[in-house]
Amino acid sequence: MQIYQQALQLKERRRGFHLITADVVYALPQIGQLKTGILQVFIQHTSASLTINENADPTVRHDFETYFSKAVPENDPDYLHDDEGPDDMPAHLKAALLGSSVMIPIRNGKPALGIWQGIYLCEHRDYGGPRNLMITAWGE
Amino acid sequence: MQIYQQALQLKERRRGFHLITADVVYALPQIGQLKTGILQVFIQHTSASLTINENADPTVRHDFETYFSKAVPENDPDYLHDDEGPDDMPAHLKAALLGSSVMIPIRNGKPALGIWQGIYLCEHRDYGGPRNLMITAWGE
Amino acid sequence: MQIYQQALQLKERRRGFHLITADVVYALPQIGQLKTGILQVFIQHTSASLTINENADPTVRHDFETYFSKAVPENDPDYLHDDEGPDDMPAHLKAALLGSSVMIPIRNGKPALGIWQGIYLCEHRDYGGPRNLMITAWGE
Repeated sequence: MQIYQQALQLKERRRGFHLITADVVYALPQIGQLKTGILQVFIQHTSASLTINENADPTVRHDFETYFSKAVPENDPDYLHDDEGPDDMPAHLKAALLGSSVMIPIRNGKPALGIWQGIYLCEHRDYGGPRNLMITAWGE
Repeated sequence: MQIYQQALQLKERRRGFHLITADVVYALPQIGQLKTGILQVFIQHTSASLTINENADPTVRHDFETYFSKAVPENDPDYLHDDEGPDDMPAHLKAALLGSSVMIPIRNGKPALGIWQGIYLCEHRDYGGPRNLMITAWGE
Repeated sequence: MQIYQQALQLKERRRGFHLITADVVYALPQIGQLKTGILQVFIQHTSASLTINENADPTVRHDFETYFSKAVPENDPDYLHDDEGPDDMPAHLKAALLGSSVMIPIRNGKPALGIWQGIYLCEHRDYGGPRNLMITAWGE
């Protein structure tokens, strides 16, 4: 078995949900050498997250932002952690709900995603800046 | 180290939460050859998901459906993605909240689950059809 | 590639969110031997969970407890599973929302966490008792 790892910095994106499947696969071309394996993508931040969802209709990504902004409200007077602005504590909570990594099986040199699946960068801050990922793949 | 991978199609199940631990373990008998390893199960869909929870009392699975149907409402007038029916956009959101994969350590040829833990297929569509999994295990 | 695995029992902690990064790394010193790899931490329970979030300001962990206790209410009359007390069914739901495992890339013998990231034990029961983890790391 082999293991490959590559850091990737994503440019700043606006608050919301963004497809990054192609960026990830392009950053680690050794995925193509693995007949059977796993791809893991990890985000090194606590106010942005990663998930897998619909890769076609952009209204799905719009509705993700609508839903999560309602489900995790800003300006809850019970929050103690509010020094960094009203979007900060909700960003930490959304990151925990969605998760800091995704894992995808590799089959015949490609991520074995379903036909409608893509990797989302979930940017929860109004101005989150560039985001750092670590991409790891292993297998044979 | 060795790695094994097997596709598995689950028959259609009704909307709700279903125990599939036995189906997964049966589909990849090579788990039994691994003294130390990891089992990953991935679902290739964006409107169904996987999680780990209580494997005994069926009321827990019933209450999961109750909770998630309240927490992620249908027919929110703010949703833009509503062409595929009222259960569609909530299904995408629930799938992201629960996740598209589970990972379980393997110890002495068996998944090292806690005594009350089982793998749930979370079917979020009213009529979701069969669901495709990819099961991967590695270790030595 | 090598794989290492170690069980770890955490002492009982009060309901809430607790940093356990140092406990995990201390329990599996072979992490230090891996130049490139992955660390997985799994919790063998269905009423406690693991996540990754802010490791500095303790008010973040306080606000996690505030948020999740509101988002997953106790004493919903629609719950059927209520024999083990009002905190039991919400604990199962919170565990599913947050997840039973975390995965972190290893680089140069250390978990490649972002500067503000730490591993949280999320204790959802009022009196959860000690909690059992399985820690696995692989790589080369």
